[in-house]
Amino acid sequence: MSALPSVDEAPRARFRPPAVPQVEVRGFWGSRVDAVADKTADILYQRCVEAGMLDQIDPDRPVPALRIPFHPNGTVTMQMFWDSDLGKTIETAAYCVYRKPNPALEAKIDAVIDMFEKLQQEDGYLSSWYQRMEPGKRWTNLRDCHELYCAGHLIEGAVAYYQATGKRKLLDVMSRYADHIGTVFGPNPGQRKGYCGHEELELALVKLARVTGNHKYMDLAKYMVDQRGQQPHYFDEEAKARGADPADYHFKNYEYNQAHKPVREQDKVVGHAVRAMYLYAGMADVATEYGDDDLKKALDRLWDDLNSKRLYVTGGLGPSADNEGFTSDYDLPNETAYAETCAAVGLAFWANRMLGMGPNTRYADAMELSLYNGSISGLSLDGSLFFYENPLESRGGHNRWKWHRCPCCPPNIGRMVASIGTYMYGQAEGEVAVHLYCDSTATLDIGSAEVKLTQDTRYPWDGAIGITVDVAKPTRFALNLRIPGWCRKATLSVNGAPVDLKAATEDGYARIEREWKAGDTVQLDLDLAVEQLHAHPEVRQDVGRVTLKRGPLVYCLEGIDNPLSLNRLRVPAPSSFTANFEPGLLEGVVTLAAEAEADATGDWNGDLYRTAAPKTETVPIKAVPYYAWDNREPGEMLVWLRGG
Amino acid sequence: MSALPSVDEAPRARFRPPAVPQVEVRGFWGSRVDAVADKTADILYQRCVEAGMLDQIDPDRPVPALRIPFHPNGTVTMQMFWDSDLGKTIETAAYCVYRKPNPALEAKIDAVIDMFEKLQQEDGYLSSWYQRMEPGKRWTNLRDCHELYCAGHLIEGAVAYYQATGKRKLLDVMSRYADHIGTVFGPNPGQRKGYCGHEELELALVKLARVTGNHKYMDLAKYMVDQRGQQPHYFDEEAKARGADPADYHFKNYEYNQAHKPVREQDKVVGHAVRAMYLYAGMADVATEYGDDDLKKALDRLWDDLNSKRLYVTGGLGPSADNEGFTSDYDLPNETAYAETCAAVGLAFWANRMLGMGPNTRYADAMELSLYNGSISGLSLDGSLFFYENPLESRGGHNRWKWHRCPCCPPNIGRMVASIGTYMYGQAEGEVAVHLYCDSTATLDIGSAEVKLTQDTRYPWDGAIGITVDVAKPTRFALNLRIPGWCRKATLSVNGAPVDLKAATEDGYARIEREWKAGDTVQLDLDLAVEQLHAHPEVRQDVGRVTLKRGPLVYCLEGIDNPLSLNRLRVPAPSSFTANFEPGLLEGVVTLAAEAEADATGDWNGDLYRTAAPKTETVPIKAVPYYAWDNREPGEMLVWLRGG
Repeated sequence: MSALPSVDEAPRARFRPPAVPQVEVRGFWGSRVDAVADKTADILYQRCVEAGMLDQIDPDRPVPALRIPFHPNGTVTMQMFWDSDLGKTIETAAYCVYRKPNPALEAKIDAVIDMFEKLQQEDGYLSSWYQRMEPGKRWTNLRDCHELYCAGHLIEGAVAYYQATGKRKLLDVMSRYADHIGTVFGPNPGQRKGYCGHEELELALVKLARVTGNHKYMDLAKYMVDQRGQQPHYFDEEAKARGADPADYHFKNYEYNQAHKPVREQDKVVGHAVRAMYLYAGMADVATEYGDDDLKKALDRLWDDLNSKRLYVTGGLGPSADNEGFTSDYDLPNETAYAETCAAVGLAFWANRMLGMGPNTRYADAMELSLYNGSISGLSLDGSLFFYENPLESRGGHNRWKWHRCPCCPPNIGRMVASIGTYMYGQAEGEVAVHLYCDSTATLDIGSAEVKLTQDTRYPWDGAIGITVDVAKPTRFALNLRIPGWCRKATLSVNGAPVDLKAATEDGYARIEREWKAGDTVQLDLDLAVEQLHAHPEVRQDVGRVTLKRGPLVYCLEGIDNPLSLNRLRVPAPSSFTANFEPGLLEGVVTLAAEAEADATGDWNGDLYRTAAPKTETVPIKAVPYYAWDNREPGEMLVWLRGG
Repeated sequence: MSALPSVDEAPRARFRPPAVPQVEVRGFWGSRVDAVADKTADILYQRCVEAGMLDQIDPDRPVPALRIPFHPNGTVTMQMFWDSDLGKTIETAAYCVYRKPNPALEAKIDAVIDMFEKLQQEDGYLSSWYQRMEPGKRWTNLRDCHELYCAGHLIEGAVAYYQATGKRKLLDVMSRYADHIGTVFGPNPGQRKGYCGHEELELALVKLARVTGNHKYMDLAKYMVDQRGQQPHYFDEEAKARGADPADYHFKNYEYNQAHKPVREQDKVVGHAVRAMYLYAGMADVATEYGDDDLKKALDRLWDDLNSKRLYVTGGLGPSADNEGFTSDYDLPNETAYAETCAAVGLAFWANRMLGMGPNTRYADAMELSLYNGSISGLSLDGSLFFYENPLESRGGHNRWKWHRCPCCPPNIGRMVASIGTYMYGQAEGEVAVHLYCDSTATLDIGSAEVKLTQDTRYPWDGAIGITVDVAKPTRFALNLRIPGWCRKATLSVNGAPVDLKAATEDGYARIEREWKAGDTVQLDLDLAVEQLHAHPEVRQDVGRVTLKRGPLVYCLEGIDNPLSLNRLRVPAPSSFTANFEPGLLEGVVTLAAEAEADATGDWNGDLYRTAAPKTETVPIKAVPYYAWDNREPGEMLVWLRGG
């Protein structure tokens, strides 16, 4: 679990995330993790089985018939990436069986791992699709067919399962596969100059390098990052090699998979949203580990582009279903928002890895935003139902489902929630960063020592956070505490003595470097005022509208609480709202209530249009956190409310 | 051309439309008609030829290969209704060669008519699709395959060509076909109890009855209207007869083609919008001719439903591309509005036929609205380019095209514009109604005499309308003059003497019954104030927004006149606008100008969201009539503007 030795000396500290077992989560996230451990983890396994995945993976079973027809283009079926669904299911199960022993599930996962082990070829290759369904076609279409993407997810599953259970079998299997990939792909003569059309392997190889201490996986990740979009273009060459015309590419150009130019030259967030996030996450890992400032610059350009022009206020992203991704600047439709759960999860991945290069609340703010809103909106409160799309407006017809033909989101939100502890902290040589506040206890590795931090807080419902330090002996290190960008008023004290926050804060983190001893306490108070956000005037869908926010939580109105057409409402100023904790509602949430004006319909007399402006009437309204919507009776939902 | 003798005595006057040759159109509509006569008519013929239609119709040519593949369901190709495209093309040509001799086009149309004559079977049957492409399958799928719809359009073309040129060939061909249809379909033993999935034949049969004086066509229209939706359901029986399961119907239920229940029981406008409008038009004709109050009641229910819940402010209708039609109450999305040109044309058909039962401005208002806005928006000012969809908001990517695989709209808007004179007047025994104001001269048949009316007006740019009466000898009749529902102030005089409008007006028409003599003059002044319309608060897409309107014209902003994102603007009160005639712009239009507030972007500093409301700046804006949009450089367009 120790930090990987430096490849060469980086110009800054490398903040690496703790492994899941290092953080015991309680409070808000504790109940989310419990929902996943109690329900989601078993559901994921069961639905994978019902989908027929094991029939494809288990070499002892007859080769099954195709279950999911090829797309009309004849190249792709979602069945091609079943290995990835299992990889994420294994990863979710790993975190869950660590939190709550579940011998039955662990035994099933062990059996799946045995299948993969048995399936693996002598040379290390491992793909249930290409070994069983399309033998002889391996490495012929990285552009479309998710071959290395599957490897990435199985690697992530292997790392998680090893960390959670100590069992090495899948880690060894996937190390052998990664070794094989490293012989096939690379800069040397006879090696393929390729990379996957769906990024994922890059960040997985970094995880594998960190857990095994083996640099070559990191180097392979860096190679794939840097090779992306180079000329001659691998996807062109590959298409010609299989007798296809590269111009026939369904998505027209390689913006779809962020391979339109070398990544260091990219400055606009384009294409498939999940692919983009996974790529940038891998790039951030590489930038962190290699101290690569040039890559960091590219990442910051992309970060600015995303955050200034194409991020939903919920932390969702990728407005269009057509490319499951990005469109034009400021195009953020609400009702038709694709905003795939996986993409918001991917943003949390990316933001978290930007924090590897040092604490900066611009990254942590976005991570927190996507975690508390656009990500966990994708999972029902009881952990049993899912969203693929996360719109910001609904007329009542967008409801959670049990499973999907493209079941990428359920295990993705499952593994993210179950591993939430790793997002809360960063650990570096002599440094600890607290990125997220949540009742929890973390045991962190700062190189020279182990530091235990206990957070005592009702956050996000309340802004008071008490932190107790525990160290075996007095130890000098810097504690970096995030002061969220949204917070207008914060106070901080150490052992009761106030800290001058302004002086102590850089990039939105208060840095307290001192010799800490066991029992030292830190008290941080973040003001959680109700606020209203306005969107940039170029976001045409949101003009004249506001979003309610309190702390990290974005709010919405639901029809069940507000029985009239939600667009008829016009909300008053933020100060008119009261925040009330309702323990019996939606597993306990703070709701926001006010009197609002509603356009009246009583005097329209069958007219559809008229010259007189609508009259208004006063009605009480109540908003709930966006993440908790559609957990009751189906109905309307609205995030951007008419304001002013 | 004389009115058809009554089948039985109707309880009210039957106002029948004049034929195209009865009205000479100048002014606003004159230049629209000229564009069609100068360009559209030839273009329609040429594009039909290029599409390969004549290869299918001409029995002297070899049977051609399929040009337009079947839909994935394997039942329908748009090539099935090529006869209808030719029917409407003939109809357009008819009106145009009457207005401006065009011997070359007339010769080509004559040749097409010769082909149809040659194609017609001994028994009268005539369908290029079923005779040439799918022989042996006739009358097997009325639900999906447009067989009777094609007959209807060819009948309309035949009537128009006869009225315009005096040539009877196609009229005789189509009378024989109608005779044949009358033997196949009907209530008698051995006859099929069917009707078309796409309504059209009904209204065409009424036209045929009126022009030939032959009642049986009217009776057949009435039969098909009343048989629609009866049980056992014809479409069920027909599906079973061809070995299909009625439950496999692509559109799930017969709301799609308004056959879900008997038409007299229908109270909600549903399904495919063009089909609905054509059905209701046919129903209105039947209600007029048979004095059928029960049917009129059903029509008024449907009228109220359309006009109170599902009509765009432009007179466009049918918001959804999925069913090319209607969705739920008050669902009127602007950018994704389907609002097919044909549907707005269809509304003009229906409204016009409601006026058959007597003048009432509720129908004429909607007719005028759709004619001046949502219909002619579908044709470029020069008559060469077309819209299929007529959205109320565009980001610049919705532009006019040359042709369409489903080319229903170009000849539909062509024939409507070229026959505009028929919409302007109604003629009945001792009655004349003026539904639309336009510089024009009409020769109307009031049974006992011929009445010539000359309108002298710059309407819709100016509200002053002078009307001169010409009769061979002093004649008593009622002149019904429409006072539009949108008009807040009107004055009327006869030979200089003021008329008490309030006393004279019923259902929005001022009725002046007197003995008229040649040279009598009427002066009507309609106030054309700039107004702003608000939508019913349940129209969620339009809350807080207004539409600019002046007289019958709905206005929009275009990017070319207003170089900033249009949703950033907030328009001032109607009184702040000045109306200015610009002779050099868009062939001469009145524009509306004002100073508006725009949300400023200069101080956003890369933020996408913030708590401070946007600052505003003042910018000049200019609005143009909606019908004229996208006739210059492509760019943004917006009808519903942020208001107040």
